[in-house]
Amino acid sequence: MARTPTIREVAKLAKVSIGTVSRVINEAADVTPHIRKAVESAIEELGYVPNAAAKSMRMGRSRTVGCILREINIAQLGGFVSTAQNAFMEAGYALMIANSEGRRPREIELLRSFSSGQVDGVLMGPYTPIEGEFEEILRELPVPLVMIDRDQPLWCDAVYTDHEGGTHQATSHLLRLGHRRIAILTGPPQLHPGGARVRGFLRAHADMGIEAAPELIVAESFLRDHGYRATSSLLGLSKPPTAIIAGGIDMLSGVLRAIRTRGLTIPDDISVVGSGRNDLSDLHQPPIGVVSWDQNEVGATAASLLLDLITHGKREEPRRVIIPTSFNPQGSCMPPRQAESRD
Amino acid sequence: MARTPTIREVAKLAKVSIGTVSRVINEAADVTPHIRKAVESAIEELGYVPNAAAKSMRMGRSRTVGCILREINIAQLGGFVSTAQNAFMEAGYALMIANSEGRRPREIELLRSFSSGQVDGVLMGPYTPIEGEFEEILRELPVPLVMIDRDQPLWCDAVYTDHEGGTHQATSHLLRLGHRRIAILTGPPQLHPGGARVRGFLRAHADMGIEAAPELIVAESFLRDHGYRATSSLLGLSKPPTAIIAGGIDMLSGVLRAIRTRGLTIPDDISVVGSGRNDLSDLHQPPIGVVSWDQNEVGATAASLLLDLITHGKREEPRRVIIPTSFNPQGSCMPPRQAESRD
Repeated sequence: MARTPTIREVAKLAKVSIGTVSRVINEAADVTPHIRKAVESAIEELGYVPNAAAKSMRMGRSRTVGCILREINIAQLGGFVSTAQNAFMEAGYALMIANSEGRRPREIELLRSFSSGQVDGVLMGPYTPIEGEFEEILRELPVPLVMIDRDQPLWCDAVYTDHEGGTHQATSHLLRLGHRRIAILTGPPQLHPGGARVRGFLRAHADMGIEAAPELIVAESFLRDHGYRATSSLLGLSKPPTAIIAGGIDMLSGVLRAIRTRGLTIPDDISVVGSGRNDLSDLHQPPIGVVSWDQNEVGATAASLLLDLITHGKREEPRRVIIPTSFNPQGSCMPPRQAESRD
Repeated sequence: MARTPTIREVAKLAKVSIGTVSRVINEAADVTPHIRKAVESAIEELGYVPNAAAKSMRMGRSRTVGCILREINIAQLGGFVSTAQNAFMEAGYALMIANSEGRRPREIELLRSFSSGQVDGVLMGPYTPIEGEFEEILRELPVPLVMIDRDQPLWCDAVYTDHEGGTHQATSHLLRLGHRRIAILTGPPQLHPGGARVRGFLRAHADMGIEAAPELIVAESFLRDHGYRATSSLLGLSKPPTAIIAGGIDMLSGVLRAIRTRGLTIPDDISVVGSGRNDLSDLHQPPIGVVSWDQNEVGATAASLLLDLITHGKREEPRRVIIPTSFNPQGSCMPPRQAESRD
């Protein structure tokens, strides 16, 4: 490219306004596919580089933000990633994502890799409790940090989901249907999603003066394999649960596999609640009831908090944004069959 | 941290050999959970930084590789990402992933962002045809490049999947069952997975001397929405297909939704084949037959090609590795009901 083409030339070639070119570049929703195509063809033909990228190259900064997640290949994270990425791109930042697989050495290695000048800010949802040496590493990060779905540490900006409220709703619904042996499978209580879900579960029982069965609370891991193993062993109890709440965004498949392996039918033999809508919960017959929330809102909020920190520096008071949840029981929740489950 | 702890101190504290600490750091499979936990505790207690990361910090290089995919939140990419990441981490590189959403301006912006010194190599599966200006940008990348599931351009190292062979198998199976109106939905023919699937589909017909119905070949997009829309309109034809091949790794859900909306049952009313096993294909009743391949092998191969290029520089002859596919019809493929479908 001998000469850098301008946005004006792109607009002229595509026969649209400069504002329209900008909306296409910023991937605004209000552009018709026809117009988008015309503008993208013009951009391609001229070899036009959108301003933000050009600017970042001139500035010589990384113009990149990093995001560390346990596992990125979870369909439900699609809304989070795409919304956050759009917000960052609009502001001229690329979003790079890395898998921690929930291993602390890897989390630390990725943080060090990011903080050696490769990113301007970090989004993270650590999988191991944030304390001691690990908390120190986070505190000493040379770039701003926003926690994703973690309510700790308190000194950090965070966006997290009201899993407590959603699990309270789901548990209350099951209790009202007559279930008295409800199991909840989720991650360790030290991590927000696990702790919050167990609190909502216990509070729903307490609100109705019903005692929760401690052996049915399995707060160990968010993984689908945990869903499979825990469900298998719970179904083998002499008094098995009549309902299961899968408290992890990719745990449902493990729970469903274990139920199927045992030859049980949903909801006749057992009621099931998942965490977050996905293809599996929607296309199961019957559709699985879920505690859900807006992953796009999580992504938009996280991006906006981090961009603000990058642009304006640290605030005196960290900000905490809580994303609401709702519960839709679908067809997977019915009164328990056995009379003995009411006691 | 006043002083940098050594691997020897970690081994001493965890009461294991140095080799075992190294195996834990490199996440070898042959470490028991008990030992792993002991070593990780020791690493944490001492604040030990594994060698590779320490080395990269001394060297002042990025020790990072970038990967650009259309959409990363596809469950089936989990094996690819985790295997590639393990291989890179073992070699001392962090893997950063970015979503292109299949948009060329974004692909270009990410490539520029990566190549401004932020990564030592790039894995990519472009979603737009590799030609003209775009091919030039790829050619002039200052770091090595390996193509993921693309057979173009020929000057580049690539690892791609034998979608042609798998689709040939699936199509042949459906033809042998008596289907004569088989639809295939996949991406544009200029991109390897789309073009390869259509070739396999046509070759299976040709092998049996049967003419494929051109109106049933919809090679436009890999997206699930395309699966939904194309299936809906195909099912509205006066002679609808009796079998559908969903030729995209996240297209199956769209196809299943459209079939369900129309009130049809699999396999009684229509046979269905998906691309790649996932929770949805496994847990559907009946399980959906799929063309599948080893995503771990794709990840391991891609990482090994790129690490070799980073370490030893460009080879004279680009290397092309083809990953085999297989077809398992499961319970979703049956002979067509209507007699008129045989002609």
